[in-house]
Amino acid sequence: MPVSTMPEATMPTSATPHEPSSPTTPGSTTRSAAAARERTAVLESQIVQRPGDYRVLTGDRPTGALHLGHLLGTVANRVRLQDLGVEVFLIVADYQVITDRDDAGDLPATVREVLLDYLAAGLDPERSTVFTHSAVPALNQLLLPFLSLVTVAELERNPTVKAEAAAAAERGGRGMSGLLFTYPVHQAADILFCHGNLVPVGVDQLPHLEITRTVARRFNQRYAAAQPYFPEPDALIAPSTTILGADGRRMSKSRGNALELRASDDETVAYFKRARTDSDRAITYEPERRPEIANLLQIGAYFTGTTPQALADEVGSAGAGRLKAVVTEAVVEGLRPLRARRAELASAGPRHLAEALARGNARANAIADRTLDDVRDLMGMRY
Amino acid sequence: MPVSTMPEATMPTSATPHEPSSPTTPGSTTRSAAAARERTAVLESQIVQRPGDYRVLTGDRPTGALHLGHLLGTVANRVRLQDLGVEVFLIVADYQVITDRDDAGDLPATVREVLLDYLAAGLDPERSTVFTHSAVPALNQLLLPFLSLVTVAELERNPTVKAEAAAAAERGGRGMSGLLFTYPVHQAADILFCHGNLVPVGVDQLPHLEITRTVARRFNQRYAAAQPYFPEPDALIAPSTTILGADGRRMSKSRGNALELRASDDETVAYFKRARTDSDRAITYEPERRPEIANLLQIGAYFTGTTPQALADEVGSAGAGRLKAVVTEAVVEGLRPLRARRAELASAGPRHLAEALARGNARANAIADRTLDDVRDLMGMRY
Repeated sequence: MPVSTMPEATMPTSATPHEPSSPTTPGSTTRSAAAARERTAVLESQIVQRPGDYRVLTGDRPTGALHLGHLLGTVANRVRLQDLGVEVFLIVADYQVITDRDDAGDLPATVREVLLDYLAAGLDPERSTVFTHSAVPALNQLLLPFLSLVTVAELERNPTVKAEAAAAAERGGRGMSGLLFTYPVHQAADILFCHGNLVPVGVDQLPHLEITRTVARRFNQRYAAAQPYFPEPDALIAPSTTILGADGRRMSKSRGNALELRASDDETVAYFKRARTDSDRAITYEPERRPEIANLLQIGAYFTGTTPQALADEVGSAGAGRLKAVVTEAVVEGLRPLRARRAELASAGPRHLAEALARGNARANAIADRTLDDVRDLMGMRY
Repeated sequence: MPVSTMPEATMPTSATPHEPSSPTTPGSTTRSAAAARERTAVLESQIVQRPGDYRVLTGDRPTGALHLGHLLGTVANRVRLQDLGVEVFLIVADYQVITDRDDAGDLPATVREVLLDYLAAGLDPERSTVFTHSAVPALNQLLLPFLSLVTVAELERNPTVKAEAAAAAERGGRGMSGLLFTYPVHQAADILFCHGNLVPVGVDQLPHLEITRTVARRFNQRYAAAQPYFPEPDALIAPSTTILGADGRRMSKSRGNALELRASDDETVAYFKRARTDSDRAITYEPERRPEIANLLQIGAYFTGTTPQALADEVGSAGAGRLKAVVTEAVVEGLRPLRARRAELASAGPRHLAEALARGNARANAIADRTLDDVRDLMGMRY
């Protein structure tokens, strides 16, 4: 199943309010990206053999219902890992909504929509643990010891933090919040509270994960030298395909160019009708030169179980109109089961969702309480 | 009862690892200091009339047994407020020990010594709530929403943070930790979790309290516009007398110039024998010109219930030797009841202390849980 990278939804708490900027040292990042990709290939084969050895932490900021970019970028991959037998922890990062905005909107409604999307997409609350930040105090408490393990200079070097600082300076309004500045450390708490050892990320998010690895390493050195307590989690790199919206820019709710998973068939048809193409007649798969066409090919290929190249060959000289028809039908048909489950869940009333979340929160709390107990013992904070 | 300002022990969590630097704008701070002093006079008279209207939050970093500077600077004032009927919350800020050092030492032993000092000095765990940071997750969780309410620029402007950033740059080693950078916001959580409305501080710590007031104000504006939820706490300014150590510098455990409350009579005698004086024969009370003599006069006056000026007149031409003898006797006699209670508590074994702390932690948790519940409701984080 193809997996694309969606920056808004890939990181554990997905708190990236702006596009990640270029890393400071492109050369070294490219090298580490290559290393991470190689490592990912090894991990993927190990996961298949021993899925029980892995625990994945991932999640989203609840800023709205999920869209096609989320599904192809992250959600489908989570379902895949879950179905392979990997234990998946899925955080609804409600505090991270207010890193970069004053008004979080109607959070209960948004969380409900996100839960509906998760469950409809195949995340099973019996096997995966879905929880909200605000409901797990022991996880949040880990922020304090972890903040002692990183310096302000290290946080300032984080590419997303740097980008946001620059954006804040440009805007000239209220600057970057303390919550945004510290969010890579909060992510370390997200990942480490459950001893997550696998984090699905895009290449541009490797610096975030590096802070988690630093926190784990320093904690172990300082407080658990005899026997490391926290794992240094591995990145599971997703192929770096970006799903574009109807306007040809990266698909994002805030840009208003997204096809929501919950959209109707008619809305789906209308969405692809206004999707940008280009003026070349024949359909070819050239992601660099023809991003909008390549994007449609990727979406179509995903839902028909083929490759973008094969789909391009199939449509060929029939042109963009034909491609749009093929893609539209593929998406409508491909999302039909998800949308049916979603409608069923929605019509069953809020109780099922509330129970799923309550179960996830209870499980996350039990694990977080145990981890915090261990951490207090290791730090000698038991009186 | 005279009260002196000891920077290491005055602020809620006393996380000041270095001397507070001069405020950025001395003029404006002087003005606000004058206003805070005026307000303190009003508050002191209101406290006597209606002590039940006030809740005080204060505390210490557990970095060692308390010394004379702590007693005269803060602890005696806390006991006074408690005995007036004010509800006192006393935080043992164990996480704040690692803001500026890697090794927190033997925390259980240190916490035990601090508790012995508190109780021996008259803090009553039946009336006052003594608790440790690490034991109150819901308090710590408040750090997250509160961090969203302040900007990085505001934290950078905090005088202690600025001083520490400069010191870190000078040292050239590992820079300022994220925990130190954010500690004024953690203090906001300390003060606001229990709706503290009165914070005993020195003048140089007013900027810290200002961040708490900002957090309270912004939270109320954003989430509780109809009915403010958090109080904007008042500073209760202590007279700005600084207790000096035997070497003439500010008394501080880390300088090795402190007289610990738990010291023996013999150690007390030896301590004052090596206390610095000056070469003038006659004893006069001139704090600016003769700080070491003034310091001895303040200590002696505190324990004999007189004023430094009166004590200076009494000793007069008998000189520094006589002054030291008078002060030594005053301290030995003045601390006798405290030291007797301390010995009694210590010999009674650790259970009494553990119970006192457990009771405090339980009470702090009950209050923090309720506050966090309210905060989640007000922020719409109930799903």
